[in-house]
Amino acid sequence: MYKIKLRAETIVVAADLVGTLVFAIEGALSAMRGGLDLLGVMVISFVAALGGGVIRDLLIGATPPNAIRDWRYPVLTFLAGFFTFVFHSTVQAFPAEWMLVLDAAGLALFAVAGVEKAILFGIRPFIAMLMGTVTAVGGGVVRDILLSRVPAVLQVDIYATAAFFGALVVLAARRLGLSPGAAAFVGGAACFTLRMVAVTRGWHLPRA
Amino acid sequence: MYKIKLRAETIVVAADLVGTLVFAIEGALSAMRGGLDLLGVMVISFVAALGGGVIRDLLIGATPPNAIRDWRYPVLTFLAGFFTFVFHSTVQAFPAEWMLVLDAAGLALFAVAGVEKAILFGIRPFIAMLMGTVTAVGGGVVRDILLSRVPAVLQVDIYATAAFFGALVVLAARRLGLSPGAAAFVGGAACFTLRMVAVTRGWHLPRA
Amino acid sequence: MYKIKLRAETIVVAADLVGTLVFAIEGALSAMRGGLDLLGVMVISFVAALGGGVIRDLLIGATPPNAIRDWRYPVLTFLAGFFTFVFHSTVQAFPAEWMLVLDAAGLALFAVAGVEKAILFGIRPFIAMLMGTVTAVGGGVVRDILLSRVPAVLQVDIYATAAFFGALVVLAARRLGLSPGAAAFVGGAACFTLRMVAVTRGWHLPRA
Repeated sequence: MYKIKLRAETIVVAADLVGTLVFAIEGALSAMRGGLDLLGVMVISFVAALGGGVIRDLLIGATPPNAIRDWRYPVLTFLAGFFTFVFHSTVQAFPAEWMLVLDAAGLALFAVAGVEKAILFGIRPFIAMLMGTVTAVGGGVVRDILLSRVPAVLQVDIYATAAFFGALVVLAARRLGLSPGAAAFVGGAACFTLRMVAVTRGWHLPRA
Repeated sequence: MYKIKLRAETIVVAADLVGTLVFAIEGALSAMRGGLDLLGVMVISFVAALGGGVIRDLLIGATPPNAIRDWRYPVLTFLAGFFTFVFHSTVQAFPAEWMLVLDAAGLALFAVAGVEKAILFGIRPFIAMLMGTVTAVGGGVVRDILLSRVPAVLQVDIYATAAFFGALVVLAARRLGLSPGAAAFVGGAACFTLRMVAVTRGWHLPRA
Repeated sequence: MYKIKLRAETIVVAADLVGTLVFAIEGALSAMRGGLDLLGVMVISFVAALGGGVIRDLLIGATPPNAIRDWRYPVLTFLAGFFTFVFHSTVQAFPAEWMLVLDAAGLALFAVAGVEKAILFGIRPFIAMLMGTVTAVGGGVVRDILLSRVPAVLQVDIYATAAFFGALVVLAARRLGLSPGAAAFVGGAACFTLRMVAVTRGWHLPRA
């Protein structure tokens, strides 16, 4: 029992750190296209990377949120924003395909980390899936609100849908008897695969 | 004492469910006019219906918020968003007058439910009135923020004012010795009446 | 020990009240330029003055937030909004230089109050500095979101930077052995001075 809990916590931490870096860099690039100054770029890096987790933690009552309790998270995102600002020509030279793949990986990692943390806090399955989705896309929503745009995730694309699907697979795999580690892996792979297939095939949800 | 508390809680639940459905459908229609996809419509349904209660619960320290603890609330709003999307021609054929009346009813129900819940959590009168108002109009504010508009409630109309007035009447009626149930009814009626009169007579607050 | 704690709490309260009034009046003027009605102006006064503190309190787990627990804060901001609306020609006749000075004072007071409160709640230094900054600029960010604009603080000017610098000086002064009161004074002076010098010399952070 103890071992399983420890394992789940380790997954949460590792997934959080990797996803955080990817989303912080993307947030910084987005803020620079919006013409913000250095501070604005660093703030958007922070918000885009950690906003989803902060919203999840406020909702499940895990205050202070992890992103605030553990100083390494904000420092990591501020540094990511700073270095993206300084070396932006290098960062922007990254092939767009790489960024898409890394973003899909971040999405999968955050969705899994979010559903894991909600389970650790005793949240029921359906709400835990929502919390996984909020963790994965919440930062992007706050980023778009700060840039005064309708959040991209509400308009097009299989994006939040992929996060929700991944969270669903995590819970289904656990219900079927897989270990927490295996369930997290299968769920993350499901989210990543659905996102990449949707991008390459141009899948969209219907619009009014 | 026990009986009174139970009564107040029943009022909170019933008012919450009816108001939730009305606001979810209105949110979905608003999101569809904004060109969002199916997921966006469902998210706006959720936010428009439950956002006010979530803000209230975060502010009074009632975490996890009711809308997150009880899976029936999010499921209800997602289904409302889904069916509004699918059958939107039917829904949009509703006479506008009906929607205005239902919306005023939802406003009154949420304002009363909000002030009741704040009282149950030991919040003082003036703040409890603010919490009733936030419950009633908070969802619409978050909906408008996500649709990248200045919240309608801040610009025109006797709307938040009606919610605040209804919350005030609930507290005044209790102070005058009415039972919680009677006070809730009188306060809801006051909010509904002020809203409907303001709409039909075209009353507005002054602008700069 | 008891005396020191009391002293720090007194500083928090006094700084909060003065800064609140300044930010509420500025928020009201901003809302009136945006064409909001009387209620909208009063809400923006509340949000601009107290939004930063509410976000800080939610993040550090101090619920209900002070702005909600103590009815004098919302009443003060609503009255400031109301009187700014009614006497706006008088208020707008204030020389712009005065407003700049008062705003810089409010910024310094809020940054200091925010970092003090975070320390009282056992928050670690780096995060306490962030909380001071959030207290100082958070209200303006929410105000701009409600007015559907990219928050000014993310775009130009040494503003949040000055708040962060002031919070940093508070902590450094305490580390160097100054009393909490002296540290607060030095930190506030540092924030105020940096802000005023930046305005008069036209200092900006680099943009992409």
